[in-house]
Order: sequence, then C-alpha cells, then structure tokens
Amino acid sequence: MRTSRRGAVDPFIVMDVMEAARKAEVSGQHIIHMEVGQPGTGAPRQAVEKLQRDMDGGPLGYTVALGLPELRRRIAQHYGDWYDVDMDPERIVVTAGASGAFLLAFTALFDTGERVGLGAPCYPSYRQILKSFDITPVDIPTTLEARFQPVPTDVAAHDLQGLIVASPANPTGTMLRKDEMAALVAACQDADAAFISDEIYHGLDYGQKAVTAASVTDEAYVINSFSKYFSMTGWRVGWMVVPEDHVRVVERIAQNQFICPSHAAQRLAFHAMDCTEELDINIATYAASRQLLIDGLPKIGLGKFAPPEGAFYFYIDVSEYTDDSLAFAGQILEEAGVAVTPGLDFDTVEGKHWLRLSYARSTEDIAEGLRRLGTFMEARR
Amino acid sequence: MRTSRRGAVDPFIVMDVMEAARKAEVSGQHIIHMEVGQPGTGAPRQAVEKLQRDMDGGPLGYTVALGLPELRRRIAQHYGDWYDVDMDPERIVVTAGASGAFLLAFTALFDTGERVGLGAPCYPSYRQILKSFDITPVDIPTTLEARFQPVPTDVAAHDLQGLIVASPANPTGTMLRKDEMAALVAACQDADAAFISDEIYHGLDYGQKAVTAASVTDEAYVINSFSKYFSMTGWRVGWMVVPEDHVRVVERIAQNQFICPSHAAQRLAFHAMDCTEELDINIATYAASRQLLIDGLPKIGLGKFAPPEGAFYFYIDVSEYTDDSLAFAGQILEEAGVAVTPGLDFDTVEGKHWLRLSYARSTEDIAEGLRRLGTFMEARR
Repeated sequence: MRTSRRGAVDPFIVMDVMEAARKAEVSGQHIIHMEVGQPGTGAPRQAVEKLQRDMDGGPLGYTVALGLPELRRRIAQHYGDWYDVDMDPERIVVTAGASGAFLLAFTALFDTGERVGLGAPCYPSYRQILKSFDITPVDIPTTLEARFQPVPTDVAAHDLQGLIVASPANPTGTMLRKDEMAALVAACQDADAAFISDEIYHGLDYGQKAVTAASVTDEAYVINSFSKYFSMTGWRVGWMVVPEDHVRVVERIAQNQFICPSHAAQRLAFHAMDCTEELDINIATYAASRQLLIDGLPKIGLGKFAPPEGAFYFYIDVSEYTDDSLAFAGQILEEAGVAVTPGLDFDTVEGKHWLRLSYARSTEDIAEGLRRLGTFMEARR
Repeated sequence: MRTSRRGAVDPFIVMDVMEAARKAEVSGQHIIHMEVGQPGTGAPRQAVEKLQRDMDGGPLGYTVALGLPELRRRIAQHYGDWYDVDMDPERIVVTAGASGAFLLAFTALFDTGERVGLGAPCYPSYRQILKSFDITPVDIPTTLEARFQPVPTDVAAHDLQGLIVASPANPTGTMLRKDEMAALVAACQDADAAFISDEIYHGLDYGQKAVTAASVTDEAYVINSFSKYFSMTGWRVGWMVVPEDHVRVVERIAQNQFICPSHAAQRLAFHAMDCTEELDINIATYAASRQLLIDGLPKIGLGKFAPPEGAFYFYIDVSEYTDDSLAFAGQILEEAGVAVTPGLDFDTVEGKHWLRLSYARSTEDIAEGLRRLGTFMEARR
C-alpha cells in the first residue's frame, strides 16, 4: 500500500540506545538512566488525589476545544504570578501537550514549502513535525558565544518565514536573555516571520529566571507544557499563548484536529498549579544533581559543556574522544551501564561530537552515574 | 502576524447552535440536547475505579509511541472476540482518540495536493484536517439507494489517491455490507488509492453487526476509538490497525507528532475492555431511544430519514419544510427548546435540507425531545 513522502520522517536515534538499555536490563545488568527527558516523579500527589475525586463526580466528557475556562484563567494568572505579565485568558489555548501545540501552531502559521528556522542543536521533533506537514525545517548553525541560540541576522540570512527558539533549550540547557529575545522578535517582525517560543522548561532554572516571550511581545506563539516543571509527562497536556487575532483561527483547527485535550488531564493540570510546595522539592533535587555534575564532570574529562542554565540536561563536547557519538554512547552503555543520548538526534551535522546527559532522575542515581562515567573515562585518558 | 492558508479551516456550524443553547439555558430555558455526538454516560465505573488505584501506584509517565503493549494485545484480542479476525498486535497503534489516528493516517499516506474522497454527508473534520495538511478533500455525492455511502466507481471517477468510509456513518447511521466494503477496497487497490475505514461507531449497531475492513483486507487503515461504545470521549484515546509494513512509518510519525497517547487514558481503556456488562446497558438505552424515534418521527412529519442502522443518529430530510437547515435548527431551539444539528456541517451542498438528531442521551430526554418536536411540527402542517 502507498505511503507518502511527507510521512518518511527520521527515527529517533536515542530509541536504539533505549532499546539496548532495555535489553541490558532484561539480561540482568543494572542501568543508570541519563538518557530520558522526563522527571522520575509523577504529578503532584495532592493534584492526583483531587482528580481521583473528580473522577467520582462526573463523566469527564469533551471540553470545548480551547480548554476548560477555569484552567485558561488559571494559566493567565500564572503569567502574572511568575513573570508580572498581564495576560488575557482568551489568548490561552490548552493543548494535548506541547506536541499538540506544535501541530496547531505550524498549521496556523505556515504553508507548504515555507521555511522555518531552528537553532541546531535542538529538539528533534521540530524538524520532523515540520517535514510531516510539508513545511521546510532550516537548521541554523549556532555558536558557543551565542550560547547555541540563533541570532537576529539568521532570520534574513536564511530567508525564514518562521523561527523557533527554546529557552531553556533542549539539549543544551542554555537560555536567551531578555534583550536577545527582543532582538530576535524584532528581526522576525521585520521579515514578517512568525516567532515561536518553546518555554516548556520554564520553572527549571537555577539562578537567573527564564524570560518569557510574552513579556517582550503579544505577537508570538508561546508554547508551554505541564510535563516538566509540573511533572505530568504521561498526561499529555500543555498550553499555548497566541496573538489575540489568532485565537479563532487556532480554535477552528483545534476543533477539527483534536476536538479537545484530555478532560482529566486538564483537571489534573488545574490542581497541579497550586502544588508549588511539592514541585519545589523536585526543583531542589534537580539543583543538587546539577551541582554534582558541574563539579564532577570536569574532573573526569567531560568538562566541555554548554552553560547548563536551565532544564535538566548537560550537552557535552566529546570530540577529543570520538567522531561517532552514537558508538560512544553504545560503549558507555555497555561498559559503564549508563544510558546517555548521542548528539546526532539534536544536530545532524555536529552532533557526532556531542552527548546529552539528563539529570531528571534522583540525585542518588546521578551520583552513581557520575561515578560509573568516571571509571569509564579513566580508561580513556 | 502572518497566518497560513492551510490553517483557514471552516468553523463547525453546530457550534453556533450549541452557543445559542448555552445562552438559552443561562437565561433559564430548559433545553433537550439532541445535537451532541457523545454518550451522556462516562467511562465504565469499574474501569474508573481501577484507574484510580493505578494512579496511586506509579507516575504514569510517557509510554512508547505505539501504546502500552498490553493494551495493543488486548485490542488485537478484541478483533478475535468481536469479528473472528486473527489480528497481529504489532499492527495495532494506540492513538490520541480517532482524531489522533486521522492525523497519523493522513501524514503517512498522502502528500500535498493529493485527492482523498469522502462520501457526503460525512464527519466534517475529515475535510478540515485534510485541508489543514494541504491535502485535497473531494466530496462524493451519495444516494439513498447506496445508503449514502460511496460506490466503487467513485474511486476512478474522482481520480482519488485515498477514500475514507465510515460504517456506521455519522450523520446517517447507515452501514456498509461486507460485499460493498470488499468492492470499495478492490476499487482502491486497482487505483493504488489508500482505503481508510472509520469504525468508531462499531458496537453501536441494532440488529445486523457492523463489518470491519480488517475482515476484508490487511491493506487498509482501520480507525477506531474508545469514545463511543466504550463511552470515554473526554479521555482522548483510540486506535488504528495499519498494514504490517506501515507500522514503522506510523511509529516514527507518532513519536514526533504525539510522543505517546495519554498513559492514564490507555490504562482506563485497557480496563474498560472488560466492562461488557456495564457497556451493554448503555447499548440497551440507545436501542430503546432509537425505537422510540423510529416509531415517533414519522408521526410528526419527520419520517424521511436514512436507514438508522448504527451509531446514535437520525439524519432527516426536512426539504419540505425549509431550504435553510441552520435557520430551521435555530427555530427548533427557540420555539421547542430542542438543540439539533443542521446538515450543513456534514454536507455543504445538500445539507441545507437535512437535520441530524442524536439519541446519545437518556431515553427520558429523547422522549421529551420527541414530544417537543411534535408540538413544533404540528404548527407547520
């Protein structure tokens, strides 16, 4: 039976690593998981208990496409609480995770063949979703000086109709400053290019606070998720802030592509937004793990990393050890029992020289992972 | 800020009716809801209780993109139980509702500009999702003789690269016989066109059993949902059967477009599949309501309807009363306090002469709705 060209997207390379890790575990080996991009914790306990009660109370049928009105209002309030931004709840669109938000945003903004820029390295699904919509992803090389983020001249230089930035970024953990964000927004406005800000790692910053594009402009798509800070990956709920005059456009697409996000997940998200105390314990765990790695990685010869300002990743230059990060990750798994992600998923060109380490699991796990990596690296020096 | 052409999809016309119904209720009027396409019941009670316990047991994080292996096996078993079809669990893809299945199917199968046929009247989102992907929806006029379903000659006549059928259909409730399904499949194979069978109303049939395309061919996309028979609309979980050599293609798209369907919803679906007793009570309710309408509608001058073989809809020809089904639905709402759906959402050409009535709510509601419609129609004869 026929298949399409648009549907021939690239596989995740990390899946091979995860499958190898699973097999190793089945055969009895103990593996430390530093490849996964999700919290080891579940949704906040108090929120789960409230949802359990909601499940006794009603059928939890379809909601309206833009999401539960009380959740949209609560998210708008969040922009006041976190960023001192006065947000109109009408501009909030609740989505089926950040994934759902990307599908809606790309549909609303781009036609076939239009060019959307991504600073390499970046989250691989940006490229593949764009490709699956017959929109052209354009990888923009970045530099350490610009903390692996795009710069304003990239917009015209690459003839872009749209630009996606992430701050804190996956895999690097780097963040855009407010003036940098504003300059990118201005460059996009000059070129009539859409500006999309992926802010799913907001709340996971250590020291300086992540800047939201919503504090810079009303003319951007701001995408967020309940998966990371709110620790709700498997529930598949996120949100998007869109320009006021895009709300109806996005609503119509959402009605057709999704009907609505999961009702139960929306209620859980609503409850989770009041669980700051429990969520801040998770942040303290990430902060401790991060410090452990900042101190420990240079001592074992893995000190060339991007500034780990946010999220829960270190992106490490291993070019002095290998030109094949996939094989290197395979060796680490086999010899050290630590699963890590090769850079090739994030950057098809330079990724062969990089590894991503996640510290989203418990600090005990991260400490043991660091110890094992130390032993592995010792043999290489 | 820019918007795309592909994103300019049509609104649901029924939304205007629903908003008018909501306003009438706010102002104190009592409304009978015969416009909504979802069960009044929630997920099976025993399944909900099991999920509540699951929520105490673990974080319910991401699953693999194709869905929980035990759910895929359970769905495969369902094909044996319901249809006597031996199904390989590897061919089952768990999705974010039937909506998610359509996004995956259209991505995997069609490129920009390709032509996909739909028998008019049909579920409106088929058209809008295709349009949002820059794929061309082609409305195929149907006849009462063919029970408002496409016929094999349509495939070549409309130069199609794909055909979507639904049996039982929304809005008509009509079903394809096995030989009709096989003839459509053969016509598609002759034209190298993809065959997509929307089977989300399976289990909601009255008398003869709905035929699955999976009993006719392994070379089709079969789309189903836990929303209707399993009464889980708001949880957003469904599934798809794909040809064996399409599994990896769909998996890669799913990894990128969705990551995974809601973990909790997958667990709930798994539990719901063993709640036959509770679900059969729902079916008995639909059957009683349907009989009420089969007997009652002709007596009030609304007897010209498509054979209501399945689902929970009557699609009624009201051409002797109006050329404007939207205005007619508005009058019914205002004067009778019954919300119904104008045919225009389902068929942009002939829909002006049709109304859809849903009997998904309680039989008491349907009886009262029928009484009110009787009073309304009396004034028109």
